[in-house]
Amino acid sequence: MKLTLSKGTKDYLPEEQIVRERIKSSLVKVFERFGFSPLETPIIEMRDVLASKYAGGAEILKEMFTLTDQGKRELALRYDLTVPFARVVGMNPNLRLPFKRYEIGKVFRDGPIKLGRYREFTQCDVDTIGSKSMLADAELIALALSAFNELGLDVEIEVNNRKVLSSIMRKAGVPAKLISKSILVVDKLEKVGIDEVRKELGSLDLKESVVDSIFDSMPKSSYFSSKLSIPFEGADEIESLNSYLRSLNVDMKKVKFVPSLARGLEIYTGTIFEVFLKDKSFTSALAAGGRYDDIIGKFIGKGEVPAVGISFGLDAVFDALKLKGIKMNNSVVQAYIIPIKVDCLNILSRLRSEGICTDIDQIGRSPSKNLDFANKEGIPFVVIVGQKEKDKDIVKLKNMVSGEESELSLEKAAEKIKSYLAKSL
Amino acid sequence: MKLTLSKGTKDYLPEEQIVRERIKSSLVKVFERFGFSPLETPIIEMRDVLASKYAGGAEILKEMFTLTDQGKRELALRYDLTVPFARVVGMNPNLRLPFKRYEIGKVFRDGPIKLGRYREFTQCDVDTIGSKSMLADAELIALALSAFNELGLDVEIEVNNRKVLSSIMRKAGVPAKLISKSILVVDKLEKVGIDEVRKELGSLDLKESVVDSIFDSMPKSSYFSSKLSIPFEGADEIESLNSYLRSLNVDMKKVKFVPSLARGLEIYTGTIFEVFLKDKSFTSALAAGGRYDDIIGKFIGKGEVPAVGISFGLDAVFDALKLKGIKMNNSVVQAYIIPIKVDCLNILSRLRSEGICTDIDQIGRSPSKNLDFANKEGIPFVVIVGQKEKDKDIVKLKNMVSGEESELSLEKAAEKIKSYLAKSL
Repeated sequence: MKLTLSKGTKDYLPEEQIVRERIKSSLVKVFERFGFSPLETPIIEMRDVLASKYAGGAEILKEMFTLTDQGKRELALRYDLTVPFARVVGMNPNLRLPFKRYEIGKVFRDGPIKLGRYREFTQCDVDTIGSKSMLADAELIALALSAFNELGLDVEIEVNNRKVLSSIMRKAGVPAKLISKSILVVDKLEKVGIDEVRKELGSLDLKESVVDSIFDSMPKSSYFSSKLSIPFEGADEIESLNSYLRSLNVDMKKVKFVPSLARGLEIYTGTIFEVFLKDKSFTSALAAGGRYDDIIGKFIGKGEVPAVGISFGLDAVFDALKLKGIKMNNSVVQAYIIPIKVDCLNILSRLRSEGICTDIDQIGRSPSKNLDFANKEGIPFVVIVGQKEKDKDIVKLKNMVSGEESELSLEKAAEKIKSYLAKSL
Repeated sequence: MKLTLSKGTKDYLPEEQIVRERIKSSLVKVFERFGFSPLETPIIEMRDVLASKYAGGAEILKEMFTLTDQGKRELALRYDLTVPFARVVGMNPNLRLPFKRYEIGKVFRDGPIKLGRYREFTQCDVDTIGSKSMLADAELIALALSAFNELGLDVEIEVNNRKVLSSIMRKAGVPAKLISKSILVVDKLEKVGIDEVRKELGSLDLKESVVDSIFDSMPKSSYFSSKLSIPFEGADEIESLNSYLRSLNVDMKKVKFVPSLARGLEIYTGTIFEVFLKDKSFTSALAAGGRYDDIIGKFIGKGEVPAVGISFGLDAVFDALKLKGIKMNNSVVQAYIIPIKVDCLNILSRLRSEGICTDIDQIGRSPSKNLDFANKEGIPFVVIVGQKEKDKDIVKLKNMVSGEESELSLEKAAEKIKSYLAKSL
């Protein structure tokens, strides 16, 4: 039998997984600081729930992995975390609102594999339901900035409101049936430029005067720091968002009003936003989201259930950190003990009880091979103990990064390791 | 459409999920302190890999969820974390050994649903491969004790060695073809008592003299604190384990030699262990594992790959904590701001920037309804701010547990909240 991975999946070996876990921890810390609680939904769902007409839409449903259980029930693997969340809301009518939850979990799509696109990938979703206040939207923008600040990535958030774009289209005289398509074309403005967008709009059979009117009336992109006066529907929501962002002390130089931003059309009803590296050296969005006040209510068959959410792409964040050369410690082990023909297990236990992640050679390698092992593993400290050290009740501590060596008591060594680690991350 | 869960799955709402996440964090902290690194393998695997004859065995394979992708590949959902781990070892011949990894993830079994048994559940596995030293086994026992100590659960670890039981059976004259069956019967000794075990052994057609001989030669269960002298094969490994446990300063009053313990037979080759609550008030094992030196090598088609591992059951640990009434803070939000007709978003931002998980009323509830909300959510502190407080540049802080109220500066309030939280968990 040949050992292979299923197509579109991968193993995350420790070197990579340690960094992924640190990203997740940073995100969770910020999510919780903003008052969001964890929720865990199953990976296997009933097929009819995931295929509801108010769920993922035709393109996603084509990529849904389906299966049955021994009772012949028709099941499927979730393709996002939003539909299961809507199901939870529908099945738990006594949830206290507003309900603020986050969920980090695997989702599955049986689609074509491109660079960086997997069939099994991790989403990190944060949503508030039950609040129509723009404060909920503002909080998610503040949360995203906090999260990327925590991760050391300099980002910018592009913000728009779905109502603005629709209103621009209507006022310019775009026929009702072409509004959705035109918006999707205009969404490409930042990527492909105005000439290409004009051409594509023309090929939708829009008159040149209508196309002119779209661009004449569309406000310029600008940072939220200045008072925005937008003569379109949705302007009140944007102004309210702007005011909440100020009250929350958000760095307004990182929040940009981009009136061409659309983010698809299917579910968003108000605010929409996408987070990019500020220098645009990484082209994909690192996180994105918006307000979707209609869909949960339709899905669960009850009136309006206001909702706003943001989703972080774990792989995109990982790739951006790598691109920017941001080093995260990628060894779990902080101290590695090299015993030279003596029993050092008491030292192992003591360092561990100090909270230091400690390991020891257990297969009797030579000291030089052990140093080589520690070096390759990226372990910051080795603790060398031979009979001489044991007799003097000291250890030899080597900082593998600086090369510095010192002989000191175990207690002092533990302090030294801890103070170095406290500074380094 | 009726909103339902797929059979054998469940949603973990925040109240429960917060505790589960805290259990996972405690486990991860201890796993890493012992030098284990995280690994993440996919949920979808190739069906032939999971169905290999050296993988799960007939009973598990019956319960394997199977599916295909659009390319008609035959896939399956993993039913444990060990087979994927063995695959990783086989596909990565350059892994530096010993390789110590942990993985926490969902596994799937399409089997009958009993109380507390789900079709989708979380396993927390910790394994060392590439070390034949009993130090690796001793480390896992020390790790389990540390982990349960961290969780506040008083446990006992029952330990045996597969070789001991086989040797007892052979010496007592059990025919070779009945040894496996007899061991499985004897495994029930602690649960059903000696009379029942004798009866079952008799019904296997063992002569009474052979049965007598089994029990005459079987040592009594005893704590590892005393020197164990066992006249059977495997005694050297047990003695070596015993000596490593002592060197690691393990509390020997929690490690018990139970010579009847078998833990099934299929893969274990040496040490085996199971962790129970010391007072046995919870009957299921909370964690269990052992040494399996043969199976990875067979699975990947290479000689012997020594391995020893332990698996923690997240649901069992959760249930045991609940049973023992161990309270874990089950609110993410640590401070909830109740604004009385004033804008307090700067207070929200400042408390969050102090690292306090803070939320605010965003739907304009009355003060009494807000207090009720905070109370029901189990939030430990509320911060009340009206015009009077704002004018005096203070806040009213209420400890929802003690009922204590105080008026103080925001800075002092943040200190008070943080010092309370530091003490409470």
